[in-house]
Amino acid sequence: MTESPQPLKEDLAIEIEQNVTDSKNHIVDADMPSEPEGNGAKNPNINIDTSVSDHGPNHTTSDGSPPKWGIHEDLKHLQEDDMILAATLVIDAKEGRNFTFKTDPTYVRSYNLYHKFYLRYLLYFMILFNLSLALFERPAKSGWEIPYWASMLLETMCLAFFIYRFLHSAYFSQREVFFRDTKNWLILVVIVLTFIDMICYVIWDNVTHSTRPIRWSRPLRPLFLINFPDGKQIRRAFRNIRRTVPEIMNVLILFLLSVLLFALLALKLFSRRDLVYANGDPYFETYLDSIWDLYVLVTTANSPDVMMPAYDSSNWFALFFIFYIVICWLIFMSIVLAAIYYSYRKNLKNEIKAAVYGKRKKLAQAFDILKVPYGGRQVVKYTVWCELMKRVIPNRSRSHIDLLIRVLDIDGSNMIRKQQFLKLADLLELQLSEVKDRQTFLEQKFPVIYNSFISRIVKLVVRHKAFRYFFDFMIFVNAWFIGFDLDEADWFFLGIFMLEIVLKLYTFGPREFFRVFWNVFDFVVIGAAVIASAIETIEDSTYEEFQLLDYLLVLRVLRLFKIFGSIKRFKVILQTIINIGPSIITYGGVILVFYYIFAIIGMEIFQNLIHYYDYYKEDSPPFCGNSALNGTQFYKFHYCNNNFNDLLRSLVVLVELTVVNQWHVLASGFVAVTSKVARLYFFCFHMCCVIIVLNIFIAFILEAFILEYTIQKVGKLESYVEQKIRDLGLGIGQTGPRQRQLSAANDNSELVPNEELNIVEQPDSDSDTESIPDLSVEKGLRFHLKKKSRKKVEVLLQQMFEGEIDPEDEGPENETEIYVDKGPRRLTLDTVA
Amino acid sequence: MTESPQPLKEDLAIEIEQNVTDSKNHIVDADMPSEPEGNGAKNPNINIDTSVSDHGPNHTTSDGSPPKWGIHEDLKHLQEDDMILAATLVIDAKEGRNFTFKTDPTYVRSYNLYHKFYLRYLLYFMILFNLSLALFERPAKSGWEIPYWASMLLETMCLAFFIYRFLHSAYFSQREVFFRDTKNWLILVVIVLTFIDMICYVIWDNVTHSTRPIRWSRPLRPLFLINFPDGKQIRRAFRNIRRTVPEIMNVLILFLLSVLLFALLALKLFSRRDLVYANGDPYFETYLDSIWDLYVLVTTANSPDVMMPAYDSSNWFALFFIFYIVICWLIFMSIVLAAIYYSYRKNLKNEIKAAVYGKRKKLAQAFDILKVPYGGRQVVKYTVWCELMKRVIPNRSRSHIDLLIRVLDIDGSNMIRKQQFLKLADLLELQLSEVKDRQTFLEQKFPVIYNSFISRIVKLVVRHKAFRYFFDFMIFVNAWFIGFDLDEADWFFLGIFMLEIVLKLYTFGPREFFRVFWNVFDFVVIGAAVIASAIETIEDSTYEEFQLLDYLLVLRVLRLFKIFGSIKRFKVILQTIINIGPSIITYGGVILVFYYIFAIIGMEIFQNLIHYYDYYKEDSPPFCGNSALNGTQFYKFHYCNNNFNDLLRSLVVLVELTVVNQWHVLASGFVAVTSKVARLYFFCFHMCCVIIVLNIFIAFILEAFILEYTIQKVGKLESYVEQKIRDLGLGIGQTGPRQRQLSAANDNSELVPNEELNIVEQPDSDSDTESIPDLSVEKGLRFHLKKKSRKKVEVLLQQMFEGEIDPEDEGPENETEIYVDKGPRRLTLDTVA
Repeated sequence: MTESPQPLKEDLAIEIEQNVTDSKNHIVDADMPSEPEGNGAKNPNINIDTSVSDHGPNHTTSDGSPPKWGIHEDLKHLQEDDMILAATLVIDAKEGRNFTFKTDPTYVRSYNLYHKFYLRYLLYFMILFNLSLALFERPAKSGWEIPYWASMLLETMCLAFFIYRFLHSAYFSQREVFFRDTKNWLILVVIVLTFIDMICYVIWDNVTHSTRPIRWSRPLRPLFLINFPDGKQIRRAFRNIRRTVPEIMNVLILFLLSVLLFALLALKLFSRRDLVYANGDPYFETYLDSIWDLYVLVTTANSPDVMMPAYDSSNWFALFFIFYIVICWLIFMSIVLAAIYYSYRKNLKNEIKAAVYGKRKKLAQAFDILKVPYGGRQVVKYTVWCELMKRVIPNRSRSHIDLLIRVLDIDGSNMIRKQQFLKLADLLELQLSEVKDRQTFLEQKFPVIYNSFISRIVKLVVRHKAFRYFFDFMIFVNAWFIGFDLDEADWFFLGIFMLEIVLKLYTFGPREFFRVFWNVFDFVVIGAAVIASAIETIEDSTYEEFQLLDYLLVLRVLRLFKIFGSIKRFKVILQTIINIGPSIITYGGVILVFYYIFAIIGMEIFQNLIHYYDYYKEDSPPFCGNSALNGTQFYKFHYCNNNFNDLLRSLVVLVELTVVNQWHVLASGFVAVTSKVARLYFFCFHMCCVIIVLNIFIAFILEAFILEYTIQKVGKLESYVEQKIRDLGLGIGQTGPRQRQLSAANDNSELVPNEELNIVEQPDSDSDTESIPDLSVEKGLRFHLKKKSRKKVEVLLQQMFEGEIDPEDEGPENETEIYVDKGPRRLTLDTVA
Repeated sequence: MTESPQPLKEDLAIEIEQNVTDSKNHIVDADMPSEPEGNGAKNPNINIDTSVSDHGPNHTTSDGSPPKWGIHEDLKHLQEDDMILAATLVIDAKEGRNFTFKTDPTYVRSYNLYHKFYLRYLLYFMILFNLSLALFERPAKSGWEIPYWASMLLETMCLAFFIYRFLHSAYFSQREVFFRDTKNWLILVVIVLTFIDMICYVIWDNVTHSTRPIRWSRPLRPLFLINFPDGKQIRRAFRNIRRTVPEIMNVLILFLLSVLLFALLALKLFSRRDLVYANGDPYFETYLDSIWDLYVLVTTANSPDVMMPAYDSSNWFALFFIFYIVICWLIFMSIVLAAIYYSYRKNLKNEIKAAVYGKRKKLAQAFDILKVPYGGRQVVKYTVWCELMKRVIPNRSRSHIDLLIRVLDIDGSNMIRKQQFLKLADLLELQLSEVKDRQTFLEQKFPVIYNSFISRIVKLVVRHKAFRYFFDFMIFVNAWFIGFDLDEADWFFLGIFMLEIVLKLYTFGPREFFRVFWNVFDFVVIGAAVIASAIETIEDSTYEEFQLLDYLLVLRVLRLFKIFGSIKRFKVILQTIINIGPSIITYGGVILVFYYIFAIIGMEIFQNLIHYYDYYKEDSPPFCGNSALNGTQFYKFHYCNNNFNDLLRSLVVLVELTVVNQWHVLASGFVAVTSKVARLYFFCFHMCCVIIVLNIFIAFILEAFILEYTIQKVGKLESYVEQKIRDLGLGIGQTGPRQRQLSAANDNSELVPNEELNIVEQPDSDSDTESIPDLSVEKGLRFHLKKKSRKKVEVLLQQMFEGEIDPEDEGPENETEIYVDKGPRRLTLDTVA
């Protein structure tokens, strides 16, 4: 709490006081009993165990710990446990959790413990640690290997924690719900299998020393990442994949059948003609080879090569290949993408629906616990609200809580109706902060100097567009110098950029400065460059330092991206990329799960068959240590470093396979050192990761981009809550009704109204300082209203969906009903195209 | 007209007679004058030149050529010329033409002449002929070359025809509209340029015999294909591309800037490390090489190769490439696709809107000419209707025309209101045929035998599912035999399949039989196989015949596709592919235009620099006749047949470049024999054809497939007209109200009702004979109602759009208004996601 005068807050407090008195009188008039029993009976879904709450500890306000502003009457109908339950439900809605837990107080406490952040982060750490064990197990990166008992010990530790989490969640969950859930079963099965595997391995290793025992349970490890209920995002992405795959199965089967058919055709056409590939390999010799060659052609990886021998023998054979490419590559691959996009979109919509309904259900449950009848409606009263908020968002000031109720309250009565209460989760998502905190350190400590004429001029200059343009131009000049290896002006540029950083820090203050990504980036790059250059000047540069400076130079080149970001036409695109960033990371997690599984399997099959030795050293073993590679393209193209000898190398190989080009050459190398059956591994990888996962990823980007684009064109999309905040003039940088009067009456600040106008009128101005309005006339608490373009894809989708359904609709009772596709209600271009 | 009893038609005729009498009485009652002058004055848009029509020939029914059913009163207000104008407008609407022509009778006749089918087809032929001249001009396919004066003569002939068409269309067009149109200017410019080019060439060739003169106007030839108003589909696709490109320009520029930036990074990182590629080439030596290598990496064509030297030197460099690939390939390429898809969808919608509005405008104009006031409304009377139809669809029977009005007439008054008249174009699109014509030849000539018990059994067997399953199985067995080279059972299979064809011919009759694509396919393949086998048995097989039979065997394998088509789960997909077929051909035309331009340019630059000689013959010139190819990958991979020595070969090279893989190797070959500037050609081709055109093509398939999928899921989508026809029971295979009564009263056909029921209840039955219902009880004319899944993408889109706008809305006056993007009216998941 600050000591500065806060007219807005005082005013609000008085108003609230009046309203509260009003509502009390009303209750007395209406004389309605509000016993906990009646309340519990009204809500059979929640199963409030009234017998427990009767003899449970009663910490409500009437019990001796009266809050300063509490009015005891309103809290009479509630027990402390009810309050905790309601707060838990609200937090669940806010966080988007979808657990069903027993509502007895002990279970609720256990549930809250389960969600403590340290336990959650410990779980994440344990899962990652468990996954990273593969780095140290055989085959490990050279020097990183640890004995198997050590890795097993570590794994057992992880498993023990997993078991603890599992039991904990079993404790507070409703039994039938818990055991109906496949993911719980999967966790159990994986844990059991892992223990069996460990025992097998130990026995195997101790009995037979000659053979290499296999840890076959290792590919199952990523299942923990998917199935623990905390990995919500990744699980959702996986669920989407799981739902999409059956729907596109028909297309895939038809596609594979076509390949089989064309392979038969090719066999008939080419096998008898004694043709050979350029490297002497036989041409369409057997049916299986035909299938493989044509499947590779669908990935375009052997594109002209597979055609050339036939084309050389007769030009008209080109028609066969062109026909095949058009059908199986161009059309079928597009249709696969279309099918995936179609079902992805449908599933996404259902996911969002389920999430919104889930949120509303939780809030409705909380409302049912807290409500009292008032004037013919069920409402949540101000005192109850304060008690609830004390638990939901602890450590927040009273004015903060008052401000929140002002947004939800529609008629100034300081009571919340159900419809508004259901919007609570959106409201809590918004960031609230005090204007005071957003003033710079200097402004607070030395206001005279900071607001002096010269200082004002400086700030005005820094906030001006030309300032940015000048430094953008300097970055460009610097890049030019770097590109042409002109190191002479290095110190000059460093000086210039340091000046920029200092000026910006002065004007915006450190807090705002470091909030902008590019400023942080600049600070790190320039700071590091200054230090490195200083070291270089003092000491003689050795090779290692040369490398370090090199990387820093490289990073400075990356600042050019900053220029792109400040050009208006590219802003939309870059903003989109930044917005879909978090979701890309989710899909990165999904891809990593697949990669991990394939990497582990690949390591078990192909480990240490191919080694990398310097190709140009004379004493290196020939053919990457495996004479089977003699004469293969794999060796000729110097691909030996692409092997499965440790986890990281395997991942690189899998990335290369995902990029597809030359994947058949990579496959051919491993086929050469094993057998043609190894093709199956590469085929499976291509089907899973390239055709399905990559296309889902592309579908996601398509969807996200089109969404962002549409919103950019259409204009703002605000939730009810944001609209209300804007109407009340409570957003940061907004001139509320009160502020507007103030600034009109205030004559001594000529510059301020202009700037305010500028901010209000041009919310999309192309300045990178736009999020930092001048706050000199604003006081008190303010909401951060994010621009439409600054929201995550998911939030946007939820808001859009909320615009579509009835605000009171809490969704069907049965969750599976949501997934029944009812189709668009009316078929028009809008719904389809 | 048939002589058989036709209860429906007779009934209808009586009804119509009554209505007509009614309406005549009404007119007499109302006693409304309907003079042509008043009519012309009412429609200033059409500018009917009443002075001309006054002294023009008056061939209306009152003039001595009375139609049998004409009632002269109704036609009084119309001149013959008005009638012709109205009919022309209706035909325009039906064909989707969008010309604005002068409405004076002479111009209208000229306009009609312009659209005569023989002139149109002659134009198509001339355009194709003009394009195909490149086959015979230098560099021509060996032996195909003709002297330059001959090709120029032929080209002059084509140009003369183009000039004639141009002048013709200029004659009847409104001058200001004609000269405001860019496409007319383009035609003129191209014609002039071509003549200048010819003159230049002749002078050049005769003055200097040493240098090779260039026909630089040849790449302009495809512009005729785009710009002549008859190439509607292709022009529309081009317009779509033209509108899409500016919208995605930002994304492309940002993408290219990123490549430039990463190239700078790569140069800094790798250039000083003395690395080389596996084939000894320098590694990131200059900035331009860096850009090229990284641009190629975006196409994934040099995927692991470009990484390997750096990866071998330090494993961590893999991060740079993975980061680059994720940003520039995965994300940027997806965003390019998304941007293209987004603007394609928007433009498509606008195109469809413009087409629907254009159609309605034409019909509204026609209605305004024909209408008479009646009962407070403007209507088109029955007699006028008949006169109009005589001109719009000549050679159709009266009952046909009567049936059409029955669909458009809402209250049985035999008069058409404006709202219904605007649907005329849809109605005329529907196919109408007499049931009698759909009976088989045998049924008409030998009904006794054909309907005998045994014959019926046979027909029942053929129509049964098991019949199809059995032959599908035989195809499969046959494929198996072919795959394993078992030729012994050849005659057995041929016999079996011949039997199938004969039985189907007997049951369905030739007309229906040949309407189904797979039947025609079977007939051709089996027929050809029988003939070829017969020839083989009689004569000794030489090598040539062996090849012929080989191809026929191959074609028989293709029959396996038929099995896929009959499996229900694949039907949707195959149906979609077939539905989007015509549009794919349109895009094929677009791609061909680009290919042609690039092929001509490529031939001018690269002709005869690389030749193909047999690699294994000892006396072949080394290195494909160009020593610059010594040691290049181009030669090592045997790519010499990929050259620009004639048009067809050039097209094959361009297809290979479109498939992208190894395109940098192809480029490197041509760079080796010319200079690094040649990379520009390949870069431009990749940007134009792969990044833009191919992505638009994928966007089209995405859109078309999602559309089809949605419709399959949602169920039927019928236009008003189709709904009306179905309500009236006038569709083929439909039991109209009359038929239902008849068959209920009819006791001697026990089998028929069952079959009818079968057809009516299971319109989606998975039989390939579904379009051939048993017609034994149906008589008279019937509409062919296509199933929802049998419509072209465009038709579907139009119907969808018609559901969206007001039926009376004829669109904004100014056509450009349509293209103003208003955005969705309400932002919900449906509109965006």
